[in-house]
Amino acid sequence: MGGMRTRLASFVPALDWLRTYRRSDLAADTLAGAIVAVLLVPQAMAYAMLAGLPPEVGLYASIAPLVLYALLGTSRTLSVGPVAVVSLLVASGLAQFGALEPSEALGLAALLALAVGVVQLGMGLLRAGFLVNFLSHPVVSGFTSAAALVIAFSQVEHLLGISVPRGHAPWESITGTLARVPDANPTALAVGALALVLLVLHPRLSAPWLERRGAPDWLQALVPRAAPLFVVVLGTLAAFTLGLPERAGLAIVGAIPSVLPRPSLPTLDMSALKQLATTVMAISLVGFLESYAVAQTLATRRRESIDGSQELVALGVANLGSALFGGYPVTGGFSRSMVNFGAGARTGVASIVTAALVLLTLIALTPLLFYLPRAVLAAIIIVAVLPLVDLAAARRAWSYSRADGAALIVTFVAVFVLGVELGIILGVVFSLVVYLSRSSRPHLAVVGRVGDSEHFRNVERHAVQTSDGLLAIRIDESLYFGNVRNLEQRIHERVAADPKLRQVLLIASGINFVDVTGLECLELCATTLARAGVDLHLAEVKGPVMDRLERSGFVDQLGRDHFHLSTHEAFGKLGAQPEQAVVE
Amino acid sequence: MGGMRTRLASFVPALDWLRTYRRSDLAADTLAGAIVAVLLVPQAMAYAMLAGLPPEVGLYASIAPLVLYALLGTSRTLSVGPVAVVSLLVASGLAQFGALEPSEALGLAALLALAVGVVQLGMGLLRAGFLVNFLSHPVVSGFTSAAALVIAFSQVEHLLGISVPRGHAPWESITGTLARVPDANPTALAVGALALVLLVLHPRLSAPWLERRGAPDWLQALVPRAAPLFVVVLGTLAAFTLGLPERAGLAIVGAIPSVLPRPSLPTLDMSALKQLATTVMAISLVGFLESYAVAQTLATRRRESIDGSQELVALGVANLGSALFGGYPVTGGFSRSMVNFGAGARTGVASIVTAALVLLTLIALTPLLFYLPRAVLAAIIIVAVLPLVDLAAARRAWSYSRADGAALIVTFVAVFVLGVELGIILGVVFSLVVYLSRSSRPHLAVVGRVGDSEHFRNVERHAVQTSDGLLAIRIDESLYFGNVRNLEQRIHERVAADPKLRQVLLIASGINFVDVTGLECLELCATTLARAGVDLHLAEVKGPVMDRLERSGFVDQLGRDHFHLSTHEAFGKLGAQPEQAVVE
Repeated sequence: MGGMRTRLASFVPALDWLRTYRRSDLAADTLAGAIVAVLLVPQAMAYAMLAGLPPEVGLYASIAPLVLYALLGTSRTLSVGPVAVVSLLVASGLAQFGALEPSEALGLAALLALAVGVVQLGMGLLRAGFLVNFLSHPVVSGFTSAAALVIAFSQVEHLLGISVPRGHAPWESITGTLARVPDANPTALAVGALALVLLVLHPRLSAPWLERRGAPDWLQALVPRAAPLFVVVLGTLAAFTLGLPERAGLAIVGAIPSVLPRPSLPTLDMSALKQLATTVMAISLVGFLESYAVAQTLATRRRESIDGSQELVALGVANLGSALFGGYPVTGGFSRSMVNFGAGARTGVASIVTAALVLLTLIALTPLLFYLPRAVLAAIIIVAVLPLVDLAAARRAWSYSRADGAALIVTFVAVFVLGVELGIILGVVFSLVVYLSRSSRPHLAVVGRVGDSEHFRNVERHAVQTSDGLLAIRIDESLYFGNVRNLEQRIHERVAADPKLRQVLLIASGINFVDVTGLECLELCATTLARAGVDLHLAEVKGPVMDRLERSGFVDQLGRDHFHLSTHEAFGKLGAQPEQAVVE
Repeated sequence: MGGMRTRLASFVPALDWLRTYRRSDLAADTLAGAIVAVLLVPQAMAYAMLAGLPPEVGLYASIAPLVLYALLGTSRTLSVGPVAVVSLLVASGLAQFGALEPSEALGLAALLALAVGVVQLGMGLLRAGFLVNFLSHPVVSGFTSAAALVIAFSQVEHLLGISVPRGHAPWESITGTLARVPDANPTALAVGALALVLLVLHPRLSAPWLERRGAPDWLQALVPRAAPLFVVVLGTLAAFTLGLPERAGLAIVGAIPSVLPRPSLPTLDMSALKQLATTVMAISLVGFLESYAVAQTLATRRRESIDGSQELVALGVANLGSALFGGYPVTGGFSRSMVNFGAGARTGVASIVTAALVLLTLIALTPLLFYLPRAVLAAIIIVAVLPLVDLAAARRAWSYSRADGAALIVTFVAVFVLGVELGIILGVVFSLVVYLSRSSRPHLAVVGRVGDSEHFRNVERHAVQTSDGLLAIRIDESLYFGNVRNLEQRIHERVAADPKLRQVLLIASGINFVDVTGLECLELCATTLARAGVDLHLAEVKGPVMDRLERSGFVDQLGRDHFHLSTHEAFGKLGAQPEQAVVE
């Protein structure tokens, strides 16, 4: 029984905190959940629009996924739902299909959520979360900055009240938008500009004002974060009372069905899935990475811990839930999670409260949003994403290391030129090539004896004794296919350069692992050295490495007497005439 | 002057050995060159046929490239020319264009050689030879075995005297061939089978026989290797005298133009180049890898050395030469280089002799080859490639490490199912994922003090003293984007598990490099640990790493007193109450 309960609790971490849940927790969670809901409702609609979907899809994606993550996730304060970057990836994935009927777009969005859910769940069960390690900081940073700019630019058409055909690459859409600036609708522009100003100023003015007035804490927490809600209410009222859509052609959200769709699985269109494969992989990895990074940061602050595989399972199930209820891909977002944490959320109950409030909005309040101007939603998106543009990161990465800076810039530029998915793929390939180039030269040191001691140090840094005819090389890294050929080459070069050389001693103290390419290079090296009259010896081979070499037959091939426990022992047996090394 | 001569000699390594060239060298080189020519002429025609090209293209590719490599290469005994695996890649690249007119195929083949030449020359000048490190032994081995089988199967149609439409994937061609077995031409089959038997038996019978008879050395070296030439002569005579083409429909080579084509650049068809991009990259890398491995092995035996970048330059120029003279991509081949070396070649003059003899054959002897049966060429290919199938390597890699074995098998299967280029790409991706999965968990050891000494060892292996509230972790690997998140997570887990923890000491003695992802993780780690009331310290940071951390501002952010020269010093300052560690 106990074992089963533990196993169940490891799959449903909520069981853990529910057992000790107290009334004071409920109060804190309710307040935080409400504050997040106030932020989430307008953002969810805006992000759905960004993804090229009707606004209600954003609300659908903000109910079931939140509840499922709250039950299955290991972070107690992560806020799951529609986020900007994932919405952009969805938009880019759907753009491949050209002009879509609304019902087709809905079907494909749910299909994407389903596929992302399956991939994340699978990665979680296979414990393959390490795959996000492919995404280095410079690549993520370059991608995020570029994506934020692309997102902001994509909203300019709504701010201007124009419609721009989608290009293949973001820079085409941007130039397309710029070319149509003269056709701007002045009303849309005015409404959008006003919304932008309010969104920027409201939190900066209201927070100090409330503090000066000694307002209660919950009000101080709520009001500054309600800016998106305020502009939604104000914009809707203005559009309705002034009759802006009819009189000035202002684009509005229109009718939103006020029911949650009946659960249904999206149609499994295999050819569409094939076309969406890159998008699915990009959303699965980028979504998990963003979510995991936030969850990790928040958990550490309270000395809680996060399990990567269980996070993948939880996000996967959340996406399956989104697919089932007509939503689109979701993940844990940075800004809303920070708000949730900052507002005092203690457990997943906060997210369940948020989901309940979104459901309430959907059922009861959507008719009120009929007149919500699209320009207001565009302004909400722009203000939400612009802080993600981090040019300082580029300067910083470049000054720290040219290779890292280049990876960031390559990714940034590639996103604009090639598109969001290809951009991130090129960034990943570039950073892998840079890494491989770096790790292809393993760190080696030719060593000699320090005085008469048992210590051996780099001949280039210390005055040490070497032996004539003996070359002792300390290898400071594990041997794998990426670096072993370079080792081989450097040994061969030294052998070719020194005709007196009779023995090569490899000091393996830094080798934690030798893969089969490494093994075969060692074997080949031993054979070709032997043909050239040079003996290969090894010292300080670690236990697990020795076991493998033994099993492979290499130990017998080379001869057991060619393996030495310590460098000291090897020098004693091999070195004949010690001579003072020339310090280079 | 001296400087210029050295610089010239580093670009034209031949100048180096030409200065000391002696008459005895010439005798040795001439014999070796002639032996290689005897092997090369039939192989070159056969491999051109394998690539889907007329046989003379193989001869064109066996003249200029040999001379150019002899002048520019750093290996003195490498034999450059058409090889089986590259020919297969050419065939697979050309197959994308469907049925081609002979002149179109010639143009595309020369274009491929041009592009491969440019890529290899560029990689050489940029010193990007490390890119071949992407190809691990298991991937190369799986690829080579599968390619050899695909090549052998592709020749079955010529042995059977039938013609099979090319499928997209090798397995489709294979099943296509098997389905047409009943249509076999008995004469072709008989000629092919006889050629196979002769090719296998001739070297095995003639070598001991010549040795017993005390034949001169050069005859003992020449005759067993002339098997392909013998079957060409016998097959041609049989086809001519018995009138097999006319009477039994035996497919023959037919007319070969007996002039070297005038040098001309292939047409630069950009859309064709785009379609051939994968093929170009695969040939450039696989070709260089094969060539470099052979050159390295041969050079070490004579204590000569090889320069990877210059090798790329030399191969690149050899391919440009091939393109200019109507050839197709070439590289240094394993078996002919071994023959060249074994026959006593001392310098590139041997290859120049080979090229002269191929040119002579082309000009004077091709009319004699009109009746050469294609089934004989097919037999030559099959006997040449079957030894490349190395099933023992799969068993060996699997028993050494499951991951390496899986990489080999994945590549092998993928070549049959997806095709040769996609097969090798999938293998590379698979081995990178495996490597990343392995390196994503950096090797860490929690350490404590050995007795009262200044030595610190792993708490899991030694009885050592630790300090309450202090966690000391030795990091045995460089920190980069692939492994740093795992480090962060393991630290956070330990902090979450031990509420008494107040200090974390990272011992950086094994860290040779920290990339910007590593730096940012360290910074984030320091900040989140501080919020949780834990201080981060570092000890034994290497000089170059410290310089970078200093420049980045991390040293000031953390506080200079958080960096310690030695673990001993850090323990002295940080550790309060030492307690006996529990040995796990």
